[in-house]
Amino acid sequence: MKLKEFQNELSKNKIDYAIIFNHPNKPDPNFKYLAGLDSIFSCLVVSKKGSPKLFASIIEVGIAKHESKIKDVITINKDLYAMIKKSFAGKNIGINYNHITINMFNRLKKEFKAKFHDISKIFDRLRITKTKEETNYLRKSCSYISRIMQTTISNINKFKTELQVKDFIESQVKKLNLELSFPIIVASGKNSKDPHHFPTHEKLKGFTIIDIGVKYKGYCSDMTRTVYIGKPSKEEIHKYNLVLESQLESIKNLRKLSPAELHKQAQKKLGKYFVHALGHGVGIEIHESPSISTKSKDKFKEAMVITIEPGYYDKFGIRIEDDILITKKGHEILTKFNKELIVIWFLNH
Amino acid sequence: MKLKEFQNELSKNKIDYAIIFNHPNKPDPNFKYLAGLDSIFSCLVVSKKGSPKLFASIIEVGIAKHESKIKDVITINKDLYAMIKKSFAGKNIGINYNHITINMFNRLKKEFKAKFHDISKIFDRLRITKTKEETNYLRKSCSYISRIMQTTISNINKFKTELQVKDFIESQVKKLNLELSFPIIVASGKNSKDPHHFPTHEKLKGFTIIDIGVKYKGYCSDMTRTVYIGKPSKEEIHKYNLVLESQLESIKNLRKLSPAELHKQAQKKLGKYFVHALGHGVGIEIHESPSISTKSKDKFKEAMVITIEPGYYDKFGIRIEDDILITKKGHEILTKFNKELIVIWFLNH
Repeated sequence: MKLKEFQNELSKNKIDYAIIFNHPNKPDPNFKYLAGLDSIFSCLVVSKKGSPKLFASIIEVGIAKHESKIKDVITINKDLYAMIKKSFAGKNIGINYNHITINMFNRLKKEFKAKFHDISKIFDRLRITKTKEETNYLRKSCSYISRIMQTTISNINKFKTELQVKDFIESQVKKLNLELSFPIIVASGKNSKDPHHFPTHEKLKGFTIIDIGVKYKGYCSDMTRTVYIGKPSKEEIHKYNLVLESQLESIKNLRKLSPAELHKQAQKKLGKYFVHALGHGVGIEIHESPSISTKSKDKFKEAMVITIEPGYYDKFGIRIEDDILITKKGHEILTKFNKELIVIWFLNH
Repeated sequence: MKLKEFQNELSKNKIDYAIIFNHPNKPDPNFKYLAGLDSIFSCLVVSKKGSPKLFASIIEVGIAKHESKIKDVITINKDLYAMIKKSFAGKNIGINYNHITINMFNRLKKEFKAKFHDISKIFDRLRITKTKEETNYLRKSCSYISRIMQTTISNINKFKTELQVKDFIESQVKKLNLELSFPIIVASGKNSKDPHHFPTHEKLKGFTIIDIGVKYKGYCSDMTRTVYIGKPSKEEIHKYNLVLESQLESIKNLRKLSPAELHKQAQKKLGKYFVHALGHGVGIEIHESPSISTKSKDKFKEAMVITIEPGYYDKFGIRIEDDILITKKGHEILTKFNKELIVIWFLNH
């Protein structure tokens, strides 16, 4: 959370104040970033100076006071727009053009008769690097998911299907009082060809991709390991090692290449069977800036937290993914668990 | 799902084709309504005639083929917009102005150089009444949540805190292989004053509101009961019965009054302590049309499914909520469990 920096950006861009709306079913991550919660209908108003105000309806103001980082919580007891106009001065208003819908924008233009400015880029710039507090949350989130990955793989011989593995992971997440940062991926055998496959009753067999993440204090982890159930062929071992080499090489070259160059290097090694981006930033959102793909214009910088996740998808799928903090002189791998091929022979099938 | 009716509406409104975008973190419920899934990045294009096409990236096309109701699933292997323009003719394009963001709209205007039309109202009109299939899903969803409510209240003497009740409900939902339609509300004692309170370690005491719902085939149920832990005062019993009377009376008058009149009648009975709407439509979304509140302009119609949920929030809170199908001649209450005050005396505290 960089409230001061956000306010400085407003000043610099000649924006009098910013209005950030949240809907629990369509949350604006920037609302969560500044207000610390995302479960309510609400509206945060931040001006160039002074403390921000959070507006909530009478039915949710209790939660807002209890869970939000914003001290000044106000009950919406009449027209919200009238209340905002009374509390905040100026005709230059910032809103998130990546969040506000066309209908909402038309409504705002009518209500405020002001000049609107897009603040989405400001948030991208602020959120692309993490504060110490955010880094600590992410480190903890990664530590939890590493532990869950280890426990899951240690117990995998007890499960027969993708869904059973998913259930076990869910129970671990629940036990730690955490929530998932995205739907669990367990993809075995032919299903591993689909990078985003959802678990089914498919029997575990061959390459089995486990791609999971949790949220700690709202900060996401994202980790993938691929294990082999049965006896891998030489070709399968070769392909696994190719992906692993690519992952290690990408991490090694983090500070030497740009994100686009890093992706291209992995693409060269893995060929047309590598069908997604090499990685992405991770934070309040599971996918955020920087992008690590061919078209990326981002540069690597200290205090970014990113994933590196090369994959191979042909007759079977393989993916290895870690979350990595970019430090002043190098990097710190936040997800920690063996990456050598684990082969599980004696499943109780 | 009313694909044919949607296509007729497109014709009537001189729209050549509609593009409906979905993002897993910010789903457009209308995408789910037509395509039957909402977990992927995707884009559905429906023209006035002919079969719709679903576009998905190579990493999610497997899921799309497996889970969607749309037969024609296409892999995005070059520029999505070029692919759409190649497959669909016409310069009048429908998009959901309640979903498309300002930045996305600017992008679409640049890409298509077409005339855009808002299709949000078309979806509202179609979705406000339910097909037989949808009604069956909702009936089943309500039957499940009624069972969970009954089991929870039957076991409530085993729990000491709001969070323990929440955990029990979650385990029941999991056991039935369902998912929640919104975060569980368990609000006891002073917490019951907050209509949208989230469960805490608060000890169960006094009025305890349980507001829960599940999704069955994507269709939401939404049910509330309030029980009393301990010995209620005469005033508490009186207030409970006032809310119950208001709920029964509202259901009785469903076909005699408009939604706005019905709300006003309940407001008159419960006074300023009734702080939210009397009800709302329920379907693919937990809150959808019609609105049952003072400002509502909707009318009740056969095949609507709505909630009726008067509440009272002062020193303590009370709410009773059922889901109701409006039938040709009357109504059918879909959530089924006792509404008389249940008092639980012998908690193992």
